[in-house]
Amino acid sequence: MQIKEISGGVCAPAGFSANGVHCGIRKNKIKKDFALIVSSVRAAAAGVYTSNLVKGAPVVVTKAHLADGHARAIVVNSGNANTCNSDGIEVAEAMCAMVERVSGIPSADVAVASTGVIGQKLDISPMLAHIDELYSGLGDNSLAAAEAIMTTDTVSKQVAVEFELGGKKCRIGGIAKGVGMVCPNMATNLIFLTSDVAISPQMLQKSLSSDVKSSFNMVSVDGDQSTNDTCCILANGLAGNDEIVAPSAELNKFRKALNYCTVKLSKMLAKDGEGATKLIECRVVGAKSLASARTVCKSIIKSSLVKAAMFGADANWGRVLCAIGYSGAAVDVHRIDVSFISHGGEVKVCRDGYGLDFSEELAKKVLSEDEVTIYVDLKSGSHKAAAWGCDLTYDYVKINGDYRT
Amino acid sequence: MQIKEISGGVCAPAGFSANGVHCGIRKNKIKKDFALIVSSVRAAAAGVYTSNLVKGAPVVVTKAHLADGHARAIVVNSGNANTCNSDGIEVAEAMCAMVERVSGIPSADVAVASTGVIGQKLDISPMLAHIDELYSGLGDNSLAAAEAIMTTDTVSKQVAVEFELGGKKCRIGGIAKGVGMVCPNMATNLIFLTSDVAISPQMLQKSLSSDVKSSFNMVSVDGDQSTNDTCCILANGLAGNDEIVAPSAELNKFRKALNYCTVKLSKMLAKDGEGATKLIECRVVGAKSLASARTVCKSIIKSSLVKAAMFGADANWGRVLCAIGYSGAAVDVHRIDVSFISHGGEVKVCRDGYGLDFSEELAKKVLSEDEVTIYVDLKSGSHKAAAWGCDLTYDYVKINGDYRT
Repeated sequence: MQIKEISGGVCAPAGFSANGVHCGIRKNKIKKDFALIVSSVRAAAAGVYTSNLVKGAPVVVTKAHLADGHARAIVVNSGNANTCNSDGIEVAEAMCAMVERVSGIPSADVAVASTGVIGQKLDISPMLAHIDELYSGLGDNSLAAAEAIMTTDTVSKQVAVEFELGGKKCRIGGIAKGVGMVCPNMATNLIFLTSDVAISPQMLQKSLSSDVKSSFNMVSVDGDQSTNDTCCILANGLAGNDEIVAPSAELNKFRKALNYCTVKLSKMLAKDGEGATKLIECRVVGAKSLASARTVCKSIIKSSLVKAAMFGADANWGRVLCAIGYSGAAVDVHRIDVSFISHGGEVKVCRDGYGLDFSEELAKKVLSEDEVTIYVDLKSGSHKAAAWGCDLTYDYVKINGDYRT
Repeated sequence: MQIKEISGGVCAPAGFSANGVHCGIRKNKIKKDFALIVSSVRAAAAGVYTSNLVKGAPVVVTKAHLADGHARAIVVNSGNANTCNSDGIEVAEAMCAMVERVSGIPSADVAVASTGVIGQKLDISPMLAHIDELYSGLGDNSLAAAEAIMTTDTVSKQVAVEFELGGKKCRIGGIAKGVGMVCPNMATNLIFLTSDVAISPQMLQKSLSSDVKSSFNMVSVDGDQSTNDTCCILANGLAGNDEIVAPSAELNKFRKALNYCTVKLSKMLAKDGEGATKLIECRVVGAKSLASARTVCKSIIKSSLVKAAMFGADANWGRVLCAIGYSGAAVDVHRIDVSFISHGGEVKVCRDGYGLDFSEELAKKVLSEDEVTIYVDLKSGSHKAAAWGCDLTYDYVKINGDYRT
């Protein structure tokens, strides 16, 4: 199966348009803070959401609106999470209602998301004042939407791919924001995916729920699971393929293309983690089970000590062993091999749980690259997993020491 | 029951002497790195150890030596953890054997501990060269021992108390080191306690195992559980009280005095966490169960975002709510009250899960103190717990970005 990367982000699939504007929730006037994605026809819709008991009001509203498996639009603001506010649900519903007013799309077919500070009331008047501008500017503007959902993100995150189903050209596109409070469980921060594939809501939900386990759920920036994590996908069927309504070869192709997009976005999220200077990929092979492979990966990626060592390009592999040891996975410590790999080369640092002599010079070279893989072979089975994170830096502390002001 | 703080650390209880010297494992000549604690008579002994699957060799050896419930000496080095080394057990046994050689104490009655970098061979020749000096200098030198077990600790940590059992004056003393890789489960880093109470090994082990759940296990600096965590206690009976051999009022008094010492050391460990500028205490009340109270406390204390906000004296209480929400404890979000309390005053920031209007000026004042309490009322029961941690600072990153060099 061929998966070709293309441009266009969420607007790459047929029938989707998007836009992003500055409405004034954020004081910085060059920072867009209000986004809209619209499908020209009603689409199958699926979502996965934070499992944090403290949930943003938009999560509650989006879950309700997507319960019938269909939607046509996604409206998003940044700068305020609309979470822990007594009027939160009301405000989230009002955001959907203003989309209905300008577009005619029933508010029950609108997904809504908010991201930013928790516990401050979200004033809807800036959005009311700019919804016409946002709607009238809808077009091939995935980038504007991707920019408008950014908080402390330093780069916008978009992806789009093209592939074939039954001779029909199909596309999936996506935008995402991440950076802080990133350690998803069931979904991560904000991810919006679009597709022109014809697929039933049931198959779409199944595909998405399964996909996030190997993509967004394997990302950690700081171990803090956000209250507003939302990942949703709209698939409008305009590609003209025979609708996927059951497990099939076509479904598998769709899932493969979807996973291509979600893993790509996952790496972008990790690499742009707050304060990050590099992407850390952890690959675990030789595990007894998929669950233990994932547990070990996540434990390494989340370790503050491993993250700080990566920042300092310090081959302190004992911290990797330590994080494996407390992960909770049943591993045989005396079978563990560890290497660090990057474009700078590969350095083997540990075999069978004991240290190897290695060149500190080579290690420094390997770890000084901006994408580094921690490769762990548990030599106890055939399962593997990957997870993505970033280094822990002075800037993480700086950004988060005074986020609200 | 009266518990009086006294001086003397591990040497406060009758019959205990200690010392610490520089032997050369650390290059810095003014940094002591070799410690010994000795009881004049054989003592009941108990220990709790890391549950990390990757265990330092000294942990394995100490467990074996304490298996019969008795010991007379504790030998410790800093600068090297003797972990993930193929000759680790041999080296740890050699440390006990050198104590036997100079003191006549059977090596099977010696507990051993090491702390420092993981995965580098520990050369015993510096210790062999200085064991005579260490032993001959034994005396009222708890401070020297406390200094010799420090790694990146900025202050030495000692405690001692006096109390009465059956009309006899009894004492408990302790020293500890912490700072990084601190998130114990069953024990934390290195803690050595001494007592002149007469108590059976069984009652001593029971008391210690129970105690750590509300003391050392409630401390987190960085969420990384060390491979070398060891907490052990020797009780030599020289106070002359009737030996405690079963649950009793006397046992409860002993446990109360023990907990006084361990909580005090826990706070010292948290306050001196790597890079820390302040002690963060989290107190949770109104929980449905003790387990959920502890889970919520630990989740808040461990949150990188809460820790960074505390560093910035930023009353970002949404992050506290967030950490409660993903803790895994079943809480009713719409009952949660949160306050910040310190010598600077108290500021209530959240009631029933929603934000309160509060004075940012007062909040800044409260959070700028060097000891801050995050007070959470879950209003769902009568259980409570406390946990201790510290803020996340530039210096944590600095210290850990290049620890080995």
